[in-house]
Amino acid sequence: MQKKFDIYKKPLKHTRVEPVSLVKISADPNAFQGYAVQKLDDISFPLVLEKEEIVFDFGDHYTGYLHIELENGNPEHIADSPTNISFSFAEMPIELMETIEDDSKGLSVGWLQNDFKTIAFMPYAGSLERRYSFRYLKLKRVDSVRFPVKLVSLSMDAVSAVSMEDALPANIADPLLQKIDYICVKTLKECEQDVFEDGPKRDRRLWIGDLRLQALVDYKTFRNIELIKRCIYLFAEHLTKQGLVAPCVFPDTYPYVAQWIYLDYSLCLVLCLWDYLENTGDSALPEELYDVAAAQIQYAGSVFDAEKGCFDAPFFIDHGKYDRSTAALGYTAYTLRHMKDLSERLGRPSDWIDPLLCKTESALLNRRDPKTGLFAAKDGEISWQSQVWAALSGALTAEEARALLERTEEYNPEVRMSSPFMTHYYLEALYCCGDSEKAVSYMKDYWGSIIKAGFDCCPECFDSRDERLSPYLTPVLNSACHAWSCTPSYWIRKYHTNS
Amino acid sequence: MQKKFDIYKKPLKHTRVEPVSLVKISADPNAFQGYAVQKLDDISFPLVLEKEEIVFDFGDHYTGYLHIELENGNPEHIADSPTNISFSFAEMPIELMETIEDDSKGLSVGWLQNDFKTIAFMPYAGSLERRYSFRYLKLKRVDSVRFPVKLVSLSMDAVSAVSMEDALPANIADPLLQKIDYICVKTLKECEQDVFEDGPKRDRRLWIGDLRLQALVDYKTFRNIELIKRCIYLFAEHLTKQGLVAPCVFPDTYPYVAQWIYLDYSLCLVLCLWDYLENTGDSALPEELYDVAAAQIQYAGSVFDAEKGCFDAPFFIDHGKYDRSTAALGYTAYTLRHMKDLSERLGRPSDWIDPLLCKTESALLNRRDPKTGLFAAKDGEISWQSQVWAALSGALTAEEARALLERTEEYNPEVRMSSPFMTHYYLEALYCCGDSEKAVSYMKDYWGSIIKAGFDCCPECFDSRDERLSPYLTPVLNSACHAWSCTPSYWIRKYHTNS
Repeated sequence: MQKKFDIYKKPLKHTRVEPVSLVKISADPNAFQGYAVQKLDDISFPLVLEKEEIVFDFGDHYTGYLHIELENGNPEHIADSPTNISFSFAEMPIELMETIEDDSKGLSVGWLQNDFKTIAFMPYAGSLERRYSFRYLKLKRVDSVRFPVKLVSLSMDAVSAVSMEDALPANIADPLLQKIDYICVKTLKECEQDVFEDGPKRDRRLWIGDLRLQALVDYKTFRNIELIKRCIYLFAEHLTKQGLVAPCVFPDTYPYVAQWIYLDYSLCLVLCLWDYLENTGDSALPEELYDVAAAQIQYAGSVFDAEKGCFDAPFFIDHGKYDRSTAALGYTAYTLRHMKDLSERLGRPSDWIDPLLCKTESALLNRRDPKTGLFAAKDGEISWQSQVWAALSGALTAEEARALLERTEEYNPEVRMSSPFMTHYYLEALYCCGDSEKAVSYMKDYWGSIIKAGFDCCPECFDSRDERLSPYLTPVLNSACHAWSCTPSYWIRKYHTNS
Repeated sequence: MQKKFDIYKKPLKHTRVEPVSLVKISADPNAFQGYAVQKLDDISFPLVLEKEEIVFDFGDHYTGYLHIELENGNPEHIADSPTNISFSFAEMPIELMETIEDDSKGLSVGWLQNDFKTIAFMPYAGSLERRYSFRYLKLKRVDSVRFPVKLVSLSMDAVSAVSMEDALPANIADPLLQKIDYICVKTLKECEQDVFEDGPKRDRRLWIGDLRLQALVDYKTFRNIELIKRCIYLFAEHLTKQGLVAPCVFPDTYPYVAQWIYLDYSLCLVLCLWDYLENTGDSALPEELYDVAAAQIQYAGSVFDAEKGCFDAPFFIDHGKYDRSTAALGYTAYTLRHMKDLSERLGRPSDWIDPLLCKTESALLNRRDPKTGLFAAKDGEISWQSQVWAALSGALTAEEARALLERTEEYNPEVRMSSPFMTHYYLEALYCCGDSEKAVSYMKDYWGSIIKAGFDCCPECFDSRDERLSPYLTPVLNSACHAWSCTPSYWIRKYHTNS
C-alpha cells in the first residue's frame, strides 16, 4: 500500500540555466574567506577546451544537474582518444581554492563536489548523475589533450519544488530587510526538493528541527502545504523501533531512519503539528498524528531524572560543546505548552501534560543563579542557549524574559549561539518578550553581514568575527545554502510588512 | 536520406555476465609481464565494501557496460555521505599494477580504463557510461569510508554483434589449432560491435586494413555479411576531400574521417570488394563501388614517381621504423592484380590497370639485390616486410616466392615483422607458395605462445622475446584483444579442417 508520505510527492520544476561569465578566483586577503572572484569574459559557445582549466560563474546559486555537449574541436585532426574531464562545483570561491584530506575528525571527503567523466566518442551530449549545489564550476581536461574539444553547450537542469515567482509578494519598506527576505526565500526555494532538505550541497536530508523552521517560512511564502505534509508523514511513518520520531529521515530511494535520537527533535513533531494547524486551519493532520506526538512526550516523561532535575537523553539544541541540560528543560517546557494548546484546540484533554510540565518548569527554575539572575547548567556554566530557552520556556512572564535577555546581553556568556538555527529561537524570544526592535537590529546586522560577505543564500553557519568558522574543521565543507538560517523571512513577513 | 551504412546497422546482442572470483594480482618474475593472478575466493553477493580495494575476475574477456547495485551496509548506522568509487578495468594483469604518466611521445592517458562514480544516496543501481573491454576489475572506495556499503550485485552488460554460438562449426583435428581457432573467433566476436572495431579497448575504430582481415575470418565463422557491407559503405560514403578511402572511419555519433591517408589502406577497398565477391558471390556491391575502387588506383598512378621508382605517398604496411617503399610496391602490385581479376569477374575491361601494374612490378624487381636475392629498400635496407610483399606481389612465380621466403628466413633480416597484421600476409605468402607446413608451424608457435602467456584473445602485438613489447612506450596501453591478429581462424578453416 502506498504510504501517505508518497501520496504527497510531486514532480520537481525544472529550469535550464546557463553560465553567465568566465571568472578567475584568486587569493585576496581583503575578500571574504581570502578569495576574490574576478570576471574575465562573457561566455559565447562553442568554447574550446585545451589544457587550461576554466571557471564558470552561473551568476547565482543553483541546485541541479549539469549537462554538457562536446564536439571534436578540429575535424581535420582526429579526436584520437577518450576525453576525460574533471568537474568541481562550488557554492563559495574557497571550495575551488582549497581542498581537504581525509581526516577522521571531519566529515567525509565524499561531500566534496568533485566529479569525473570519460568520453569515448565525439560528439557527446550527457549529464552528470549526481546533483550539485553551486554557483561556480571549474572544468578541466585530464586526458593528454592531444586535440581540441569544443564545448558546444554547458547548462544546468536546475531543480526545485517551487519557483521564486511562486512566493507570496511581501510589501517590505526597508531596503535591507527586502534584500534579507530575498536571500531567505531563495534559500528556502533551493532547499525545497523532494523533501525540505537541510542544505542542497550537504547533507541533503530531512531533519525535523530544520523542517519546522522551513515550514514556518514556507507558510508565509510558497505555501507548499503538500510538501510540509509529506515531510511530517515521512517522520510519522518512519519511527524508530522505540516509537520515537527520529531526528532525520534519509530520503534515499527508500527512506529510512537510524536508531539514535535527539529528544528535542523527537518532541519537535508537536511543534510541527501546532504550526500546521495554526497556519492552515486544517485539524485533520494533527488529529491523525496526535498519538504519535503524545508518545514523544510520554517518552520524555519516562527519561526525566527527578533527582538530577534533567532529562536523561541527548538533545541537539545548537552546535557546540556545552552543557545542554538547562536549555533542554526550557525547550521541553516550550514544547509541552504547545502540546497543551494543540490538545485544547483539538478539543482533547490536556491535563495529562501538566505533571511533566510542572516538573520540567521547576527543574528549570531551580537552575537560576540568584546572584546573576541567569540560568546555569552543571558546574555553573552560563550559555546563551540556556538563557534563550529559559526565556521561551513559558516559565517566565514576558517582562521577566525581556529582563533575562537584557541581562544576558550585558553578561555576554562565553558560550555563544553558534548556528542560525539557534539564532531563530533567540529572535523568537525577543519578539515574544516585546523587543522587536532588537530583533530587527540583530537580523539586519547578522544577515546584512551575510549579504556583504557575498553569499547568494543563507549559510549553515556564519560569524563575521571568524570567516573560517566551520563545524567540520574546514569551511570547504560548509553549506552556503542552508534553510535553517532562512527564518528572517518569517519574522519580516509576520511583523515588518505593510499590508 | 538514410545512408547505406546506416541501413545495415543492427542492434547488438546483450548478455549479462557476473564476475566469477576474487583475485589478487602480485609481482611474479615468472609470470607473463611479471604479474601473476591468484584466486582468493568465489564470489557471493552481497559483498561489503570497506577500505580495501577488491579485484574481480570475470573469467574471460568481455566488452560492455558495468552495472552496480549498492546498499547501505548497516541500516543501524547512517550512510552519512556520498560514496565515491574508483573503477579500473584491465584486459591483462599489468594494467592494474602499472600506470602511465602523460608523455607526449605516447598515446593519451585517456585510453586508460579508469572511471569514477560519486553516489549520494543508497540504495543505488546504475551503470558506468563508458564501455570497457576487460577481464579484471579493480574497485576501490575513495570517500572517507565511515560506513560499510554492500555491493548487492555487480555485472556486465556484455555486448557484441554476434554470439560465440553463431560461429560456423569447424572440424579441427589438431588440439592446439582448435584452441587457436577458439581465441581467434572469440577475438573477432569481441571486436564485432556497431562496426568491426580494431580493438574494443583501444582504438575502438574501423580501420580498413583491419576490416579486410576481420571480414576474411567472418566469412568463415559468423558470416555477418550485413556488418561487412555496413563497414564497406562506411568507407565508401566517407571519402576524403580528395576522393580517397580514408584509413579509418571514426564511428562516432556521426561518423567522420580525417584527411590524412595511407595509400595501402585506400587501395585496400579493392581487396575488400574482391573478398566480398569471392565469399558471397554477390556482385551488386562490387559493381556499385567499382568506380570508387578504381579511383584509388588512379590516385596511386598519379603519385607514382617514375624516376625514383616508388610511390610518393605514405603507406602503413606494418608498425615500426623502416623504409616502406619496397613493400609498398609489392603491396600495390598485389592489389592491382586483385583489381584486374575483379574487373574481369564483373565483365569489365581490365587493361587500363596494366600500365601501372607494369611500372610497379618493374620498379619492384629493380630493387632485388642480385647478390643476396633479397629485395632492398633505400640504402640497401633489408626488411621482412619487403620480402613478404615481394613474394605476394605476383611478380614472382610460386617457386621463386618460396625460395625468396626461405632465403629470407636464413638471412633473418634485422627489421622484423612487428604486428600480427603483417604476420597474416606472411602466412598468406607461405600458403600461396605452397609451404603450408611452415605456415602451420608458425601459427602454432606464435599463437600457441599467446595462449601460453595467458591471453584470452589475440593481442595487438606480441613477441615472446620481449614481453613488454609495445608500440606506445608501455604495454599498459596495449590492446589484448585486437582483431587484426585473429586470422589463424581463416587459415585453419580454409586449409586444416576435415569436412
